[in-house]
Amino acid sequence: MREVDVVRDFLQQAAPPEGTVLSWEERRMRMDVFGAAAPLADGWAAAPVDLGCPAEHHTGPAMTPGTAMLYLHGGGYCVGSAVSHRGLISQLAAAAAIETFAPNYRLGPEHPLPAGIEDVLAAIEALNARGFATNRIVLAGDSAGGGLALAVSLRLRDAGKPLPAALFLISPWADLTHSGKSHKFRANADPMLTTADLEEYAKAYVGQGGSLASQDASPLFADLTGLPPMLIQVGADEILLSDSETLQSRAADQGVMAALEVWPGMIHVWHIFYTMLSAGREAIQDAGDWIKRRLAE
Amino acid sequence: MREVDVVRDFLQQAAPPEGTVLSWEERRMRMDVFGAAAPLADGWAAAPVDLGCPAEHHTGPAMTPGTAMLYLHGGGYCVGSAVSHRGLISQLAAAAAIETFAPNYRLGPEHPLPAGIEDVLAAIEALNARGFATNRIVLAGDSAGGGLALAVSLRLRDAGKPLPAALFLISPWADLTHSGKSHKFRANADPMLTTADLEEYAKAYVGQGGSLASQDASPLFADLTGLPPMLIQVGADEILLSDSETLQSRAADQGVMAALEVWPGMIHVWHIFYTMLSAGREAIQDAGDWIKRRLAE
Repeated sequence: MREVDVVRDFLQQAAPPEGTVLSWEERRMRMDVFGAAAPLADGWAAAPVDLGCPAEHHTGPAMTPGTAMLYLHGGGYCVGSAVSHRGLISQLAAAAAIETFAPNYRLGPEHPLPAGIEDVLAAIEALNARGFATNRIVLAGDSAGGGLALAVSLRLRDAGKPLPAALFLISPWADLTHSGKSHKFRANADPMLTTADLEEYAKAYVGQGGSLASQDASPLFADLTGLPPMLIQVGADEILLSDSETLQSRAADQGVMAALEVWPGMIHVWHIFYTMLSAGREAIQDAGDWIKRRLAE
Repeated sequence: MREVDVVRDFLQQAAPPEGTVLSWEERRMRMDVFGAAAPLADGWAAAPVDLGCPAEHHTGPAMTPGTAMLYLHGGGYCVGSAVSHRGLISQLAAAAAIETFAPNYRLGPEHPLPAGIEDVLAAIEALNARGFATNRIVLAGDSAGGGLALAVSLRLRDAGKPLPAALFLISPWADLTHSGKSHKFRANADPMLTTADLEEYAKAYVGQGGSLASQDASPLFADLTGLPPMLIQVGADEILLSDSETLQSRAADQGVMAALEVWPGMIHVWHIFYTMLSAGREAIQDAGDWIKRRLAE
């Protein structure tokens, strides 16, 4: 049995009975329970920290001085937390040898856009105040966190402010209008996401009267000129594959250093299953190497 | 002045007066003179070795035991050598911490296809005899060498033989029919190649009556199923950009792990100008990290 099929089985067993409607709170709790069980990297720890919003601070041995990662968890802008992604964040911090901050930015539907963006911008200022220049910060995120990292970078660029050293994006959700062709041709392959579910999350995030196609919500459609180098890792078997492919192609056309890795057989944010998937551990190591390289320039 | 503009000036000054027609021998000599002046990596040396065809063997400190790289130089299948690419090969070998072999495979027009392919297949057998299993060999190449690496891998797959651990391709020339759109929309940006020149090389390589679209000549059109993980690095300002983009997309669709890096402002095989271009040194380091990771799996 392929490793990824073990994960697919796990996902099926962990899913609530068909027809169950979970509240946002229940969905958040389920993700946190999963995340809290994930092992941290050897020698690394996570502690609470205040970055304007509540956050977690990952520290460990062999951290590159003066540099930090700001990691934006996924969860459709409505669920997920520094807890649900703690293990993944720890493993990535260790692979990149970088101290890492994971903000609990405000979520929809209680706090629609642009609350989350404002929280991340404030978190960057808080990191500046702690001595990390923005151009020594790597901005990373998965799924909605990847889209958020792009939206925040565009806000910084438009304001004429310094930009992060690099962006690391895992399976980014960057097109909330779901125009990518993978929504159709990967629908049967994706065990985690459905376009219908994403539509619910997207509406909850942009709020009443909000636009799904705005630069804040769907940075894929923005002019990307001037953005920092980005590494995009995406699974071949997910409905968000097109978001990554289009992002890479648009970034490259607009003069942005864009590296795209499409991992065969892999699913949405497979890194988070690193205890079960060697490809998850490998992708984390690849990204860690890439981040180290960007900060050494 | 941007670093790459210094290289562009250098290329302009080094070009023969317009209208000059150089023989194949003169073109080869010019490339070797350029390459022989390039500095090797610290502590690394190159020595002659016999792999069925004449080759060079790069060795240095901190080599990963039991692994080797087979590097296929570019030059349109008609020029170039282990000498013309010696400096680049040395830097890459050091970045990947791997002993490296660079065969002087037979070239067109004197030795049309499949002479070069047969030489590389024989070189792999010679490496097997030296104790390197094929799945511990990284097959790398630039430009025509990248296309050749693909063609050789397809030959191995079709013969049911073991495949290399990974492919590292710099600005691969994988479509000798030149159907990619970048032949048009990057024609003014590319300071090194013209489609007309490539047509001359392609004809010289496939020989009288040879097909430009065969799997051996244009592996881009082949079924890529089963090929090893590949890293493709390409410049945004070269007419061969489409070869890389299409290769990545086709590979990903066919279940092959394909990573694509499009480097803004960079030109065909910019790595070879590593003494002048920090982006060349960075790309070599990126590739070295990626190769190490593949061999550690």
